[in-house]
Amino acid sequence: MLDSNDRERLDALYDRMRAANEVSLGYPAAKDFDYADLDRFFRFPVNNIGDPFADGTYRVETREFEREVVQFFADLFRAPRDDWWGYVTNGGTEGNLYGLYLARELLPNGMVYYSEQTHYSVAKNLHFLGMRHITIRSLPSGEIDYEDLRETLKIHRDVPPIIFANVGTTMTEARDDVRRIVAMMDDLAIRQRYVHSDAALSGGYAGFLHPRPSYDFEDGADSVAVSGHKFLGAPVPCGVVVARKQNVARIARAIDYIGNLDTTISGSRNGITPLMLWYRLEELGIEGIRARLAHSLELAEYLVARLQSASIDAWRNPNAITVVFPRASEALRAKWQLATAGPISHVIVLPNVTREQIDAFADDMIAEVQERKQLAQH
Amino acid sequence: MLDSNDRERLDALYDRMRAANEVSLGYPAAKDFDYADLDRFFRFPVNNIGDPFADGTYRVETREFEREVVQFFADLFRAPRDDWWGYVTNGGTEGNLYGLYLARELLPNGMVYYSEQTHYSVAKNLHFLGMRHITIRSLPSGEIDYEDLRETLKIHRDVPPIIFANVGTTMTEARDDVRRIVAMMDDLAIRQRYVHSDAALSGGYAGFLHPRPSYDFEDGADSVAVSGHKFLGAPVPCGVVVARKQNVARIARAIDYIGNLDTTISGSRNGITPLMLWYRLEELGIEGIRARLAHSLELAEYLVARLQSASIDAWRNPNAITVVFPRASEALRAKWQLATAGPISHVIVLPNVTREQIDAFADDMIAEVQERKQLAQH
Repeated sequence: MLDSNDRERLDALYDRMRAANEVSLGYPAAKDFDYADLDRFFRFPVNNIGDPFADGTYRVETREFEREVVQFFADLFRAPRDDWWGYVTNGGTEGNLYGLYLARELLPNGMVYYSEQTHYSVAKNLHFLGMRHITIRSLPSGEIDYEDLRETLKIHRDVPPIIFANVGTTMTEARDDVRRIVAMMDDLAIRQRYVHSDAALSGGYAGFLHPRPSYDFEDGADSVAVSGHKFLGAPVPCGVVVARKQNVARIARAIDYIGNLDTTISGSRNGITPLMLWYRLEELGIEGIRARLAHSLELAEYLVARLQSASIDAWRNPNAITVVFPRASEALRAKWQLATAGPISHVIVLPNVTREQIDAFADDMIAEVQERKQLAQH
Repeated sequence: MLDSNDRERLDALYDRMRAANEVSLGYPAAKDFDYADLDRFFRFPVNNIGDPFADGTYRVETREFEREVVQFFADLFRAPRDDWWGYVTNGGTEGNLYGLYLARELLPNGMVYYSEQTHYSVAKNLHFLGMRHITIRSLPSGEIDYEDLRETLKIHRDVPPIIFANVGTTMTEARDDVRRIVAMMDDLAIRQRYVHSDAALSGGYAGFLHPRPSYDFEDGADSVAVSGHKFLGAPVPCGVVVARKQNVARIARAIDYIGNLDTTISGSRNGITPLMLWYRLEELGIEGIRARLAHSLELAEYLVARLQSASIDAWRNPNAITVVFPRASEALRAKWQLATAGPISHVIVLPNVTREQIDAFADDMIAEVQERKQLAQH
């Protein structure tokens, strides 16, 4: 039993979290989930240890549900039939680490290319894996500068390229065009290559956009990582990584101890998050996902229009749910928990965001900008 | 809403898990936890992104509680006052990966030494990090062969050693003696070195044993990793890693995006597991942990005695809660979910294990052995 002081601290934490959650618009975390039905599973020491497609001796696990989650995303990412594999990760970083790890095993000599708008965790991953890399310029949208990439690939044709594509970028949700990059490599007669798509945020809905962004297996990717806690929503970070099975098979190692081939990074693995993602996908269905996406796109467009009508230089990439605007004041950044990098801040209009919240935020922004203008006039 | 078929599947999963959980004795996962008080926190997208000791802009987090958990283990591991840092990981593998990563950054040229009884994930980690390594023989107990280690260190004095110590090993809970290894390096005049203790299971209680195993900072370790879901118990894998702060500072990188210095591996991090570990530590207190340990040790001794009384060659290391015996049949391994490697299987007498379960298991083992003997006589 906890003592009363501990109980009060937990209550205070709960109140603080609930309040903070009401005014969080800057981080890519959907809030409209309810997994109360799954609370009973938290009474067990669940562990999906090892490969989700193999059976181990430890049976307090949810691999059957995990496989369905991976299958869903393999289909969404148009992975080649019977040549895909994947698992539920602890988040986007692990999925990207896995894709880069696979790439390194296949092309030990490879050079990684990624745009300067790439999430900071990728440089950390590459340092971790000891992989050589070149940062490519970004276009103003945040997309990779294809000309710079082409020139750089051309110069380094002695080492196989490993493309780390953003779908989309952290700050502006810009999506690198995988098909275009693959065509560029074809044109340069580069046959040995690897393409990983970091679809942390957009992977949850890119397959339902018109036009469909070019990011998946049919477009030329060899692995795709997506976060589960971003567009779908979950109380803890999680994600899915899908890769070509024949590539994964090359790094498989026989492990006597757990009685299965473990090619995952974690070994002992969370068995609750796969259940949550399964629950979410079953609950929403394709139509539910489409409806949430439509809501986000509409509201993102509305926010851009509201800010622009007050002469605030807001914009968004085509079909993006991220709205970009000039760096907000420290007060607003703190209140709305806005992610900020250099001269820009953003709001991510996730499906849970309401018109009321968007209006409240826009009112704050506009009031601040007008106040600043008045001060400047005096 | 889920449809009725989905609901039935979840109910079936729950029943299956509950049944499997009743007869699981082979994996290091305590089951006597109850975090129902924390269910309400699962309604929020909690994320302890980045460094637990820095504040970020995203406020739906539990860093304050995480810091207390790390503090508890820093004290338990006798970390130097004001020179430690750590965080709650996704499990033992991440903690070990972190320790090895730190070691590589400090000694890029280093050679990793670990015993052949080391968990398979370590070889995977080292491959990941591209670190050179030498496997040292094990003693029959599972402990590292100090003579072999000494000879090998002596030969390779041109490269700084990185010791990966098991506290204890996966199969026999053997604990490498860190103080002895450090004295050996002193004796060989090896000054540049790093010692990581993998205390995945034993880290939860080694500090309360008499005699105290030699594994922590005062004994000479530079980092210690422990699992949270093993001795304390949790529904998902988690753990804590503690390292010397001055070493961590050397790999810190300034990250504008999240507004803090992120030296963690995951970036986005689970905010619920720190709360669970905090809850568990508050609930149990030191006395509660001691009582659970005493229960485990007593029952482990009892199981050894029962099996030995039936002429089964069972044994355990000093003050170990792991009971080792000759490889069990496939039927028994499946029923009791026994981890098995080569000629041995084991039971881990975690604090939740009851005398009734131990008796039921011992009855099964003894019946099988006697049946085999009778068959052999005919």
